[in-house]
Amino acid sequence: MIIVLKSNVSDGELQHVLERVESLGFKTHLSRGTFRTILGLIGDETKTTPGELLTIPGVADVIPVMPPYKLACKEAHPQPSVVVVGGVKIGGGNLAMIAGPCSVEEPERMDAIAAAVVKAGANIYRGGAYKPRTSPYSFQGLGVEGLKILRETGQKHGVPVVTEVTDTRNVDKVAEYADMIQIGARNMQNFALLTEVGQTKRPVLLKRGMSATIEDLLMSAEYILSQGNNDVVLCERGVKGFDKHTRNLYDIAAVAVVKGLSHLPIIVDPSHATGRPDLIPPCALAGIAVGADGVHIEVHDCPEKAKSDGPQALLPAQYAEVCEQIRQLAALFGKTISPSPGAN
Amino acid sequence: MIIVLKSNVSDGELQHVLERVESLGFKTHLSRGTFRTILGLIGDETKTTPGELLTIPGVADVIPVMPPYKLACKEAHPQPSVVVVGGVKIGGGNLAMIAGPCSVEEPERMDAIAAAVVKAGANIYRGGAYKPRTSPYSFQGLGVEGLKILRETGQKHGVPVVTEVTDTRNVDKVAEYADMIQIGARNMQNFALLTEVGQTKRPVLLKRGMSATIEDLLMSAEYILSQGNNDVVLCERGVKGFDKHTRNLYDIAAVAVVKGLSHLPIIVDPSHATGRPDLIPPCALAGIAVGADGVHIEVHDCPEKAKSDGPQALLPAQYAEVCEQIRQLAALFGKTISPSPGAN
Amino acid sequence: MIIVLKSNVSDGELQHVLERVESLGFKTHLSRGTFRTILGLIGDETKTTPGELLTIPGVADVIPVMPPYKLACKEAHPQPSVVVVGGVKIGGGNLAMIAGPCSVEEPERMDAIAAAVVKAGANIYRGGAYKPRTSPYSFQGLGVEGLKILRETGQKHGVPVVTEVTDTRNVDKVAEYADMIQIGARNMQNFALLTEVGQTKRPVLLKRGMSATIEDLLMSAEYILSQGNNDVVLCERGVKGFDKHTRNLYDIAAVAVVKGLSHLPIIVDPSHATGRPDLIPPCALAGIAVGADGVHIEVHDCPEKAKSDGPQALLPAQYAEVCEQIRQLAALFGKTISPSPGAN
Amino acid sequence: MIIVLKSNVSDGELQHVLERVESLGFKTHLSRGTFRTILGLIGDETKTTPGELLTIPGVADVIPVMPPYKLACKEAHPQPSVVVVGGVKIGGGNLAMIAGPCSVEEPERMDAIAAAVVKAGANIYRGGAYKPRTSPYSFQGLGVEGLKILRETGQKHGVPVVTEVTDTRNVDKVAEYADMIQIGARNMQNFALLTEVGQTKRPVLLKRGMSATIEDLLMSAEYILSQGNNDVVLCERGVKGFDKHTRNLYDIAAVAVVKGLSHLPIIVDPSHATGRPDLIPPCALAGIAVGADGVHIEVHDCPEKAKSDGPQALLPAQYAEVCEQIRQLAALFGKTISPSPGAN
Repeated sequence: MIIVLKSNVSDGELQHVLERVESLGFKTHLSRGTFRTILGLIGDETKTTPGELLTIPGVADVIPVMPPYKLACKEAHPQPSVVVVGGVKIGGGNLAMIAGPCSVEEPERMDAIAAAVVKAGANIYRGGAYKPRTSPYSFQGLGVEGLKILRETGQKHGVPVVTEVTDTRNVDKVAEYADMIQIGARNMQNFALLTEVGQTKRPVLLKRGMSATIEDLLMSAEYILSQGNNDVVLCERGVKGFDKHTRNLYDIAAVAVVKGLSHLPIIVDPSHATGRPDLIPPCALAGIAVGADGVHIEVHDCPEKAKSDGPQALLPAQYAEVCEQIRQLAALFGKTISPSPGAN
Repeated sequence: MIIVLKSNVSDGELQHVLERVESLGFKTHLSRGTFRTILGLIGDETKTTPGELLTIPGVADVIPVMPPYKLACKEAHPQPSVVVVGGVKIGGGNLAMIAGPCSVEEPERMDAIAAAVVKAGANIYRGGAYKPRTSPYSFQGLGVEGLKILRETGQKHGVPVVTEVTDTRNVDKVAEYADMIQIGARNMQNFALLTEVGQTKRPVLLKRGMSATIEDLLMSAEYILSQGNNDVVLCERGVKGFDKHTRNLYDIAAVAVVKGLSHLPIIVDPSHATGRPDLIPPCALAGIAVGADGVHIEVHDCPEKAKSDGPQALLPAQYAEVCEQIRQLAALFGKTISPSPGAN
Repeated sequence: MIIVLKSNVSDGELQHVLERVESLGFKTHLSRGTFRTILGLIGDETKTTPGELLTIPGVADVIPVMPPYKLACKEAHPQPSVVVVGGVKIGGGNLAMIAGPCSVEEPERMDAIAAAVVKAGANIYRGGAYKPRTSPYSFQGLGVEGLKILRETGQKHGVPVVTEVTDTRNVDKVAEYADMIQIGARNMQNFALLTEVGQTKRPVLLKRGMSATIEDLLMSAEYILSQGNNDVVLCERGVKGFDKHTRNLYDIAAVAVVKGLSHLPIIVDPSHATGRPDLIPPCALAGIAVGADGVHIEVHDCPEKAKSDGPQALLPAQYAEVCEQIRQLAALFGKTISPSPGAN
Repeated sequence: MIIVLKSNVSDGELQHVLERVESLGFKTHLSRGTFRTILGLIGDETKTTPGELLTIPGVADVIPVMPPYKLACKEAHPQPSVVVVGGVKIGGGNLAMIAGPCSVEEPERMDAIAAAVVKAGANIYRGGAYKPRTSPYSFQGLGVEGLKILRETGQKHGVPVVTEVTDTRNVDKVAEYADMIQIGARNMQNFALLTEVGQTKRPVLLKRGMSATIEDLLMSAEYILSQGNNDVVLCERGVKGFDKHTRNLYDIAAVAVVKGLSHLPIIVDPSHATGRPDLIPPCALAGIAVGADGVHIEVHDCPEKAKSDGPQALLPAQYAEVCEQIRQLAALFGKTISPSPGAN
């Protein structure tokens, strides 16, 4: 930790700063410059925070030198983590292909879509039973009934399932039915929910919030990891942008940045990032090319009748085409789509 | 609702579109242009959504003409709403002056800060018992113990209290101890939480999320209103920006925009918007000048020792000065700081 | 300047870093920490840049401790600068009231609008003769003819005039006819143009670019100052935002931030910041409340027939009302609208 | 064009609206709805603008149905354009590989870098002779001397050269020495400069501004096209973002969006988009995967001594590796790196 002192710091203030940081267990190195005086702190940075030091009179700035996400950072685990979801590996060269409709719908439709996406190459099936909808008047999901339909469909087609949880009171129920629990973008900083899923044994798919920095995302992962759940997969799904042509701004470079900072797998979600079926295939391929550990795509066999987010879903045939292209692209990078465990 | 058809729409597609919208109960007016064909829908817009119509083959765009926040919009309640919190009026010319420390701390400190801010002019006392912190290793709040301390302090000084709720499981408890329940920026789209506070009888302080559009904010208010709780006060506290000099980007024009769209009161929070004590006073005054119904400011008598967010708190003496300036400014606009109900 | 070295820096690399910075004339203070090693540089920071130091092998980060805008910074000129435009003072408690149509139009219209705004309180008259338009098919301004009309109108009504320059080749001509030269937001980083206006004797109104940081703005001012022209007035006119209700995002806190960093006057432009006549009055008042040295507002007596940007102009009667409110608000802050020099 | 009328529009206002639009040559279709009345305009949209119509009393909104970039849009030229730069094709399956140092430097260095990048696969050589620098105290480029060095280096190595122009007064000179003229991000809306390069016969590389929408970018291209110069290549180089890990926010989806709207080729610049050498290779590959027509990368053989932007340059060996990966990726998509015309 480096403390930059104010240019007009008095001797009394300086003395006080020194006493404070030494009382926190740090040794100090003082450098008096022509314009500014700086103070290097030698010791365990986790004993304080920049915010705390900033409040000491005479302090102009505090610069930390270690990442605050101690468990998520690469230094804590230099090799890429591999997260296993119902037998499907994610990370370390193994690609997750998560697909399915936005919402869980009636069993026949869920079955038809699952048959199509699994055939195409999907290895994890998705569908929302609890839907976070901007409007209170929109369809809010089928709840427990939806969880059951999703589970049965997954079992029939031999693929693990992932579904979103939106309320701490439902975490146990979701963990009972799902192989992987999703935290949506709007709940990325719902810390009570993060803590709760951190206490389950289920892998977590953590989507980046629309205005979350990469550090925010890794700190939210840290909430889950710090509860003892090591199986976190991150997901880039677009941040807030200013152009009306896409729903969000697909931040592909964030994938490469995360790869340099953390051992956790990270996948991309071009469906939510762009909100446009015509942009999903090229953006999915860009995700693989930049190094993502998988792709999350919404698929529906009749987008016109989807209960939510129909306009951004691919048709099964379009999805099959993307899968084929991803397979070829993955081969170029020495990666493979993880096989699904196969039908029961 | 206006439907713009694709330039190459076929007769068959057009026929299908007409059938679909008529089946939803709309009458239609078709205008065939040189370049594009448009379809005006006459009927009850709440029976469908633009997203649903967009999925019909041949449809290029859908333009709604009524706001989706039916209860929050001005058309539903042309006069400005006045929300009453423990006897303190907010809106309609009555200014809320919410002040207090970021976190609830020990009783003596809470008492000292309350004494100072109430004397200065604060009419609602704040303090967090459940703190949403970016890091799992930061102080997370005193919980129920904090709620009790806050309540007792408020009663002693004759002011209602507001505190944040972050978990659906704590809503009842918070509603028991607090006069007003705060939904923080990170939970603005935690719809389960919005629904739950909508079912209490407590007024709600709803803070705008960092990447929330004004429509998103009003839709979140709509969640609360649609549960039967009409007492919602909005709060502008800065959106995500790109300049490092401030913590967020204080969107003052949003206050004036909301005044044109909704009957709900809206206050400003220059503490979180700027994150810098030196910017709080001018930004608070700007908030009053633009038409806000009150100001939320963090105050601490020893920011250096605050358990959270110390660096962005005003000292009591600085707060007293701002209050005095706000009082004069308010008079110019024919507004007054609502008196606090007085000590028990 | 503080250099943070990479955690795995070798002794050889460290030696090389020390030699490099000493060859640049710096003395060094080395602090070896548990996790990181830091190096404080003592000497004249203007002899190098962080970018240059960052390229030395082994360097992880470089932290400057002096602002790069040496002439614009407060340290260079602790008192607020007062810029005088044709007899009208801006800064130091004197408010500029710049008003007029977006484009210079025919003489009769220019005369009528000038009569109205000067009567209301405007002390500088504006109008664009060279218009930066997004579309090549839009009206591009009257050119030299427009400059002449603007000049004559200003002289008749006894007010100085300001107009935009968009091409280095026109700087001399604009400087001949105008009392103040405007650099528009889209040209804020047109460094050739900044350099050219820096060589004139005319005061410059420098508008902030839509994605310019505050430091970018001050660096662009520095371009003008470094050419010997000290009369720069900054203008906040909104940055790029994500909400569709306003044209831009009015960054009012930037005014207060600039006041802390620089001696240059700064005004606000709520017309371009919001793009909506109904939002201009409250946002103008907010600008004065936050500490701006004046307000720039577009006024047209028939917005419907304006050659450009009609929809965001106030009517003369609306402008008169805003002026009256600003006058009262200014009095509260001990400021006054600078009187215009009076008709010839 | 569709006009949405205000909900409380009077009959007199409606009559006035009808007269105005009919006087502009439009036929009208009126649809009176339950909540709103809309008016469809049938005729040549280029005769008016939404802004003009918005000023008519009673008009609430105006919705255009044709893109305002008439020459740049796909409707004007359904096949992808192929731009030829000194014999090198860009677009239509032909990839541009633009590489070289940020600034033109001394001849020996330029020669060494050119030898390396051309050997690796670059087909256009770049270097700035006129540098737009944020600080007036930074190196501003070698000017005409730099143009000569660049030209000679290109000729020696048999590759065309591209360099930036920043001042209308230098356009002729730059056009004389360069095979392609670059308009930088900061000048994307320097309309005088766009008009001037539109009057040369040189192909133009137009970089997207940091807060430019995709429509803004295409409108700036339209400026050049409307002057008779059809050879415009667009370039995505990152927009303003809020995360500190990258210099800008690489908007890869914009490439796919542009492909759907325009016939113009578009390349990517991961150097400026990310500002970090370690992110350039994965982001370059992502650009090819999403469909870009080429990649612009800064390369320097000694970034530590580069006169500008050294920290974001690749070393020649790193560049060679990226080229090889791009070659393989391109083959997968049926594209090829255009061969350079060969040494004189």
